[in-house]
Amino acid sequence: MLEVNAERLLADLESLSGIGATADGGVDRPALSEADLQGRAWFKQRAEEAGFEFRQDGAGNLFAKFSSQNPLAKTLLAGSHLDSVPNGGRFDGPLGVLSVLESARTIEEAGIDLPVHLETVSFTDEEGTWLGLLGSRAFIGALSSEDLRKTRGGVQQFDEALNRIGCSQESLLRCKCDPSQYAGFVEVHIEQGTRLAGAKLDIGVVSEIVGIRWHWLRFVGEAAHAGTMPMAHRKDAFWGAAWFSERAKDLIQSDFFPGVMNCGQLTIQPGAFNIVPAEVQLGLEIRHGSPEKLDAMQTALFSLAEKSAEKFGLALETESVSAIPPVPLDETVVAGIESAAAELGLTHTRLLSFAGHDTQSLSTIMPSAMFFVPSVDGISHNPRELTHPDDVVNSANVMLQTLLKLAAART
Amino acid sequence: MLEVNAERLLADLESLSGIGATADGGVDRPALSEADLQGRAWFKQRAEEAGFEFRQDGAGNLFAKFSSQNPLAKTLLAGSHLDSVPNGGRFDGPLGVLSVLESARTIEEAGIDLPVHLETVSFTDEEGTWLGLLGSRAFIGALSSEDLRKTRGGVQQFDEALNRIGCSQESLLRCKCDPSQYAGFVEVHIEQGTRLAGAKLDIGVVSEIVGIRWHWLRFVGEAAHAGTMPMAHRKDAFWGAAWFSERAKDLIQSDFFPGVMNCGQLTIQPGAFNIVPAEVQLGLEIRHGSPEKLDAMQTALFSLAEKSAEKFGLALETESVSAIPPVPLDETVVAGIESAAAELGLTHTRLLSFAGHDTQSLSTIMPSAMFFVPSVDGISHNPRELTHPDDVVNSANVMLQTLLKLAAART
Repeated sequence: MLEVNAERLLADLESLSGIGATADGGVDRPALSEADLQGRAWFKQRAEEAGFEFRQDGAGNLFAKFSSQNPLAKTLLAGSHLDSVPNGGRFDGPLGVLSVLESARTIEEAGIDLPVHLETVSFTDEEGTWLGLLGSRAFIGALSSEDLRKTRGGVQQFDEALNRIGCSQESLLRCKCDPSQYAGFVEVHIEQGTRLAGAKLDIGVVSEIVGIRWHWLRFVGEAAHAGTMPMAHRKDAFWGAAWFSERAKDLIQSDFFPGVMNCGQLTIQPGAFNIVPAEVQLGLEIRHGSPEKLDAMQTALFSLAEKSAEKFGLALETESVSAIPPVPLDETVVAGIESAAAELGLTHTRLLSFAGHDTQSLSTIMPSAMFFVPSVDGISHNPRELTHPDDVVNSANVMLQTLLKLAAART
Repeated sequence: MLEVNAERLLADLESLSGIGATADGGVDRPALSEADLQGRAWFKQRAEEAGFEFRQDGAGNLFAKFSSQNPLAKTLLAGSHLDSVPNGGRFDGPLGVLSVLESARTIEEAGIDLPVHLETVSFTDEEGTWLGLLGSRAFIGALSSEDLRKTRGGVQQFDEALNRIGCSQESLLRCKCDPSQYAGFVEVHIEQGTRLAGAKLDIGVVSEIVGIRWHWLRFVGEAAHAGTMPMAHRKDAFWGAAWFSERAKDLIQSDFFPGVMNCGQLTIQPGAFNIVPAEVQLGLEIRHGSPEKLDAMQTALFSLAEKSAEKFGLALETESVSAIPPVPLDETVVAGIESAAAELGLTHTRLLSFAGHDTQSLSTIMPSAMFFVPSVDGISHNPRELTHPDDVVNSANVMLQTLLKLAAART
C-alpha cells in the first residue's frame, strides 16, 4: 500500500514550526502577520519545488495544484490553514496542510495519474485574528460586506494587512469559487479534545460539526442595601444566575450528551460588595450536532432559567447573539475516510466536531468531511499543543488513502 | 409629658427638603456640594433663631449648643447628618438632626435648665461622597492621612471642596474632640429595612452595629475550549463560584440569622462565550453583630468554598479587603431609649443595625446608642424614601424623652 514519506513530512513540520517560533516551543503566526507572510512564502516554495501549480485567490487562500492529465477533470480539494492563534501551537492547522501536500507529493512521485486535479489548500485566517473562517467563507461566497465590518482590530489595520498579500476587501467579496469544478473536500485536524486518547483510538471520523448558539440571559431583580435588606426579602439577580447555572450544567450532561454548554461571561450590576445585585447578564453557549437537540437544549435551559427567575422573584430576558447551525458531513467522504483508516489498520470512531473548522464552510458547496488525530491532553491554542509523530504520519497516510479512494470514485 | 412641636418639626423637614430637591421628590445633597452648603447655612440659621450657640469644627461638623446654667456641665451630644447620597431621599440623615434640634427647642421653650449642655450635631459626609463617616471619624480622632488618600473623586477636588467650608485636610486631622467633656451620644435614623414595619413596631432600639467583612474569593481552574473539552473533564471556575454561592446563602440564612451575606461582585477570566472560565473572582460580604459569629460565618463560608473548589478541581485563594468590627452600643443609653419609647406608649424592640452610622464612630469614645423609626418598604438612598409623619414625630418625642432621661442621670 502506498505510504507517505514520514521523514520528509516531519521535517516539513519542523521547518514550518520555525516560522513564528516562540521561546516556549509554540508558534505565534496570526493571519497576515509578518510570520504568516513568511509561512505563506514557505508554502509557495514547497509547492513549486514539488512541481505543483501555485496560486493565491482574492482572499489570500493558497493553492498548490497537482494536475490530472485530463484537462476536463474536476478538482479534489484538501487542506486546512497555516495561521495560528497568538502564542499557539505547531499543529493546529499546519498538520492539515502538510498532510495533503505530502500526500500529493507521494502520489506524484508514484507516477499515478489521478482522474481529478488534486489541490492542497491553506485558507486565510481560520483562527479569526480578523474574522473566523475568513478565507473559507470568502471561497464559498458566504462573506458579506456586513461581515467585514465586524472584523477585529480596526478597519484600517485590516485593509493594510490585506494589502500586504495583495488583497483587499473588494477582492475578498469577489473570490467565490466555481463549485461545479470541485469534486469534494477533505480536512484533517488535531482533535483539540481527549476523546480519542481517552478511548485509545487513532482516528476520529467527523460525521457532523456542531451548531453553536450564543444567548445573553438577563436576570433582573432589585438593587438593595446588603446590610439592611433582610436576605429573605431580597430579589438578588445573582442568586437566580447561580441557581440556574448550577443546575444547567447537570441537566445538559445528564439529558443532552454529547451536547455541551458553557457560561463563560457574567456581569453584575451595580457591582459592589455592599449592594444586592440588581441585574446579572450571563453569557450562555450551547453546542450540539443535531438541530432538533439544539432546539431542545435551548428550550430546556430557558425553562430552567424561567424557573430560577420565578423562584427568586426576578424577571428574565433572553437575547440571541449568534446561531450557527450544525453541519452534517458527506456520507461518501466519511465512509472513504473510515475505509482508509481500516485498511491502514488504524482504530477509528465517528464523532462530532465540537469546534468550527473550514470544512464547515466547504460542506455547504461540495461533498466534504474531515477527521481528527489525537492531541495530547486535548491541549490546543497553546504552546504545549502536541500530536505525536506517529499520529502525524497516520494523519497523512489516512489523507493519502482517502484522496486515492475519492479520486478513484470519479473514474 | 413634654412633647415636641410636631407642626414645626414637619415644617422644618419640608423646608430642608427643598434644598437640593429633585423633580421626583427626592434630595440631591452630597457632602460639600452647592446644595450641602445651602443645607449648612439653613441649619446655622435655624440654630441661631433658636438662640443656640452655633459652631463648626475642623471637619465641617456643625454644632448647635443649648447651654446649661452650669458652666462646668458636660455636653450631651445628639444628631446625625444633613448630607444625602446622590439622588437620595429626604429622611436619611436630616430626620436625626431635626429631631434633636426640635427636642432642644422644646426643652428650651419649656424653661428647663438641664444639668448638661445639649448639642445638636450634623456630621460631615456620613454618606461617603468623599469618605464614609468622614466627619464623625475626624471628630473622634480616628482619621489618618492615609485614610484621606483614599477619598473618592480626586485629591484636588477634595481640597477645593473642603476649602468651600473653610476646612482643609490639615484641619480634618486636627479636630479631635475632648471626650472628657462629653456625657454621651444619641442618634435616630430611618431603619432602611422592613423589620419594624414587618413586625408593626414603632421604634427599633439598636443594641449593636454589625461588623462588616469584605473578602475576595478567587476560584482558579483552567481555561479550555468550550466545545472540544468534554464537560466531565473541565475545571470550570464558575461552576465552583455558582455552587458555593448557591449554598452559602442558604447556610447563612439557616445557621447564622440575623447575620447576612452578599455576593455583589464577580468577574470571569478570560470571559468569552466559547472559553471555559479559568478564574472567577467573587466579592463576598458578611455582616453580623457578634465578632464570634462573624468569625464562625467566615470559617463556615471559607470551608464551603474549599469544598466547592475541591469538588470542581479548582484552587481557592481568599483575600481580605476590609474588616470593620461589630460595635456593641451602651446599655445605659439603650435602656434610656427603651424606657422613653415605653413611656410614650410606643411599641419597640431591640435590633441590630445592619448599616454603618455615625454612632459607630461616637461609641468608641463615649456612651452611645441609636434608634430607628420605620421606613416604608425599607427603601432608602432613593427618591422614594418615605417615613410617615407620625413616625417622624415619634422619632423626635423619643429623642426628647431620651435626652431628658440621660441628662437627669447626670445630676
